[in-house]
Amino acid sequence: MPLGSNSYGKSGIRLVRLARRGERHDVSDLTVAVRFEGDFEAAHVAGDNSAVLPTDTMKNTVYAVARERPAGEIEELGLALSEHFLNENPAVSSVEISIEQRLWNRLDGTAFEGSRSDRRTARISRRRGGATVESGLTGLLILKSAHSAFSGFRRDRYTTLAETEDRILATSLTAAWTHASPQGPFSGWAAVRRTLLETFAAHDSASVQHTLYAMGEAALGRHPELMQIRMAMPNKHHLPVDLSRFGIANENEIFVATEEPYGLIEATITREA
Amino acid sequence: MPLGSNSYGKSGIRLVRLARRGERHDVSDLTVAVRFEGDFEAAHVAGDNSAVLPTDTMKNTVYAVARERPAGEIEELGLALSEHFLNENPAVSSVEISIEQRLWNRLDGTAFEGSRSDRRTARISRRRGGATVESGLTGLLILKSAHSAFSGFRRDRYTTLAETEDRILATSLTAAWTHASPQGPFSGWAAVRRTLLETFAAHDSASVQHTLYAMGEAALGRHPELMQIRMAMPNKHHLPVDLSRFGIANENEIFVATEEPYGLIEATITREA
Amino acid sequence: MPLGSNSYGKSGIRLVRLARRGERHDVSDLTVAVRFEGDFEAAHVAGDNSAVLPTDTMKNTVYAVARERPAGEIEELGLALSEHFLNENPAVSSVEISIEQRLWNRLDGTAFEGSRSDRRTARISRRRGGATVESGLTGLLILKSAHSAFSGFRRDRYTTLAETEDRILATSLTAAWTHASPQGPFSGWAAVRRTLLETFAAHDSASVQHTLYAMGEAALGRHPELMQIRMAMPNKHHLPVDLSRFGIANENEIFVATEEPYGLIEATITREA
Amino acid sequence: MPLGSNSYGKSGIRLVRLARRGERHDVSDLTVAVRFEGDFEAAHVAGDNSAVLPTDTMKNTVYAVARERPAGEIEELGLALSEHFLNENPAVSSVEISIEQRLWNRLDGTAFEGSRSDRRTARISRRRGGATVESGLTGLLILKSAHSAFSGFRRDRYTTLAETEDRILATSLTAAWTHASPQGPFSGWAAVRRTLLETFAAHDSASVQHTLYAMGEAALGRHPELMQIRMAMPNKHHLPVDLSRFGIANENEIFVATEEPYGLIEATITREA
Repeated sequence: MPLGSNSYGKSGIRLVRLARRGERHDVSDLTVAVRFEGDFEAAHVAGDNSAVLPTDTMKNTVYAVARERPAGEIEELGLALSEHFLNENPAVSSVEISIEQRLWNRLDGTAFEGSRSDRRTARISRRRGGATVESGLTGLLILKSAHSAFSGFRRDRYTTLAETEDRILATSLTAAWTHASPQGPFSGWAAVRRTLLETFAAHDSASVQHTLYAMGEAALGRHPELMQIRMAMPNKHHLPVDLSRFGIANENEIFVATEEPYGLIEATITREA
Repeated sequence: MPLGSNSYGKSGIRLVRLARRGERHDVSDLTVAVRFEGDFEAAHVAGDNSAVLPTDTMKNTVYAVARERPAGEIEELGLALSEHFLNENPAVSSVEISIEQRLWNRLDGTAFEGSRSDRRTARISRRRGGATVESGLTGLLILKSAHSAFSGFRRDRYTTLAETEDRILATSLTAAWTHASPQGPFSGWAAVRRTLLETFAAHDSASVQHTLYAMGEAALGRHPELMQIRMAMPNKHHLPVDLSRFGIANENEIFVATEEPYGLIEATITREA
Repeated sequence: MPLGSNSYGKSGIRLVRLARRGERHDVSDLTVAVRFEGDFEAAHVAGDNSAVLPTDTMKNTVYAVARERPAGEIEELGLALSEHFLNENPAVSSVEISIEQRLWNRLDGTAFEGSRSDRRTARISRRRGGATVESGLTGLLILKSAHSAFSGFRRDRYTTLAETEDRILATSLTAAWTHASPQGPFSGWAAVRRTLLETFAAHDSASVQHTLYAMGEAALGRHPELMQIRMAMPNKHHLPVDLSRFGIANENEIFVATEEPYGLIEATITREA
Repeated sequence: MPLGSNSYGKSGIRLVRLARRGERHDVSDLTVAVRFEGDFEAAHVAGDNSAVLPTDTMKNTVYAVARERPAGEIEELGLALSEHFLNENPAVSSVEISIEQRLWNRLDGTAFEGSRSDRRTARISRRRGGATVESGLTGLLILKSAHSAFSGFRRDRYTTLAETEDRILATSLTAAWTHASPQGPFSGWAAVRRTLLETFAAHDSASVQHTLYAMGEAALGRHPELMQIRMAMPNKHHLPVDLSRFGIANENEIFVATEEPYGLIEATITREA
């Protein structure tokens, strides 16, 4: 039977790097994944592993290449890794490096607090013709308690939802933006994050779609190095609790936060069509 | 800025159905997701919700449509839901219904044991031109303690892995196969699962890729209703523990099972090129 | 400041053992935790580690002791480990060994299917005066679709729950039973599990408490080697969906399964007061 | 068979409260659990529910009582709830209220960022004779990259760990402190958290136990309203990667962060013996 698309790699490579400058350290806390595509038909069909670099070697390489470079933006590590792997492996047609970075806040020179659940992300895709670089974030919890409506929507016989001009809008944002240049610079990550947060906070929202688009438009508008941005915004519903049964008023003050079911809104905004 | 690809929907719709025939019940335990693509530019750009069916309505519809149909294979429910949504929503160009089914074992007529972590899955993708139906499973833990080797692989300066003719091969299988006919029948799920298990058990494995391919080839070979199959097999590494430091022999008897890092092998096998 | 109760140990020790008898293997898949209590005040107050056996050594010991013994019931491994640690460490007053066992079903002589989410458990607590042994299980999903009521309960001004004579009762059972003799035998685990399942299935349930008690009473009644049993049964609520808004009847056929909030019922049943 | 200790309650009650003061809102995001102990033998043994307040009523009560009180510290809500339940239910001998609070950072008057994984916690235990109040936090990730040693420890035949004067110490801190007065005030939470962080950062650590004790001692020393503090500190091991195989030096710069196995250190520090 013909082998179709296929890939293999190593995921969950945990790398913590200390950059030591006397009594002031920096911590870089990464989870790296490596993925190869290429001509691996013999491995699948005939059990011939001669073109297969072990995933254990991928792991070793991540640590070694990281050590031989200065600490820097995660996109730079991803570019170096993808270049190494593509150069060294003729059977490989494309390499994807995905990195998630846990962010630690400094307590003092050598102590850190890391209790932020959102992560910085990067994904480098390299073919023989060149690389594309995507930067982003995942798990950023945000909530608006005003300036959020949902009304004027389509109704059918199964529609029972009430229109509202005042609801909580809450999501766990995942966003990823493509850089116009694969050479970077990649130092603008915090500025894009800030644009997304500011737009979310200021937006007069008619829906999750409406706010998602506004956030993407602002990111592209303010950051000319971005080519496109894609976002996923699960709608984490907050439902007002009916306390009228107990003779108690509840004018959008007490809500139950629900995990299931949840809306899921996804879109890509591009700089030009 | 131009809006690129976009979608929205409802995920995590939990539906448990009892089919009652006197003192003998059947339980169907589903988690359903609905996803729309279509012309929703006005919602994103202008906050105009007139084409947007609320995701809350999607949820209501899942329950109502399920109730009005006989219990059956999950693919049939997915086909009915996708047809309903596409017919009723002119702005929608494609509907995707994803269903995961928890499987309960009967204890007696009305009691059940559900402690299986693998799930049956289905994904129905419908456009105006027709539907495609994918069936599958996810989370199926399988382990071979013999007839599993990994040797003859490519080496470079970062390769330290020893060749082995005797290792544990363990994975959590996700597989999904496309049906030649979107009309089904869909009653062959358990037979395909059995083929995958039997092939995994019997295969003389040179690598995860080799066994994955053999499983896919057997599935297509024995089940003519399948057009293609894709599989993902994380390599859950089991490493022999070095007890020689304590003067104790350990000839592949005692292993440490590791979660991170893990290999990840994915491929699609097709009936014809 | 005075140091109160304190303990330390190693958790998450993953041990997979193959017992090889030619072409027929047995797999034992364990997660072990070791915990010491004792006189460790100097370590806390003065940073004096001279009495502190490293948790890394605990881990090594688990692998070494397991290798030097025949495969057997997990309780036996726990007894051996706890005896070793107490004998070798004079500062230690009590050792607790906790073991969770993933259960694999045989596919053939050397292949296995492990997709069961419930685990066998054991906990051995040993002091200088002797050991107590607890066996159990965790994560056993069970569901009754008949013979389950909840009525006649206490009401107050905040009570809105309707009485019902026909509801779904579903839980994820955790149970642990103490053996009359710390010497065992421990081969009765599957029989106790079967008693719990059979009683759950057959019981005419007035509440979760009522069924929990019946299960514990049956376990003590049928298995004289048990001294007491404790159980935790989260009430995984299944709520009938109101479809009357759409002109559709739903007589306890379509339910929404909910994760949050959940009831939590816990009790211990003893052989004698 | 005699019924031993038993309890029941509701867990996972998700309550989000908006305190609105014009264009400036405050968000209180809580997960509440209620647990009753008392005389519930008839429910267990005879299926007599007449003393059993439904857990659904517990949930309703949490929302209603929260609405009828001003927003305040979570300990105050817990005290009010426990008092209500104990007063209204003569069969109940003790009520435990557990609250976890997700903390949201303000983006502007009505928008918030919530991506902190550590949570504020409170547990109120009330019997007819009075209440005890415990405050705390859970999931606070902290890491020291200097001033952390582990040496001079006990060795046996299974000890292979090297002594070190320079290691990473990382943990996910859970701490809970008991208040001298159950009346509070409870406004000192952030100050205790700061004391724990400062002590962790400044401590010259000989072991996890040593640092844990120092943190507890500082908390009791600086905050006279605390009676005792208990802490759990899993040791999240960071292991230097051996790059010498590749001719690359790695002097404690590149580490692999591991999840399993992990040390677990727990202790209680009291104000007086």
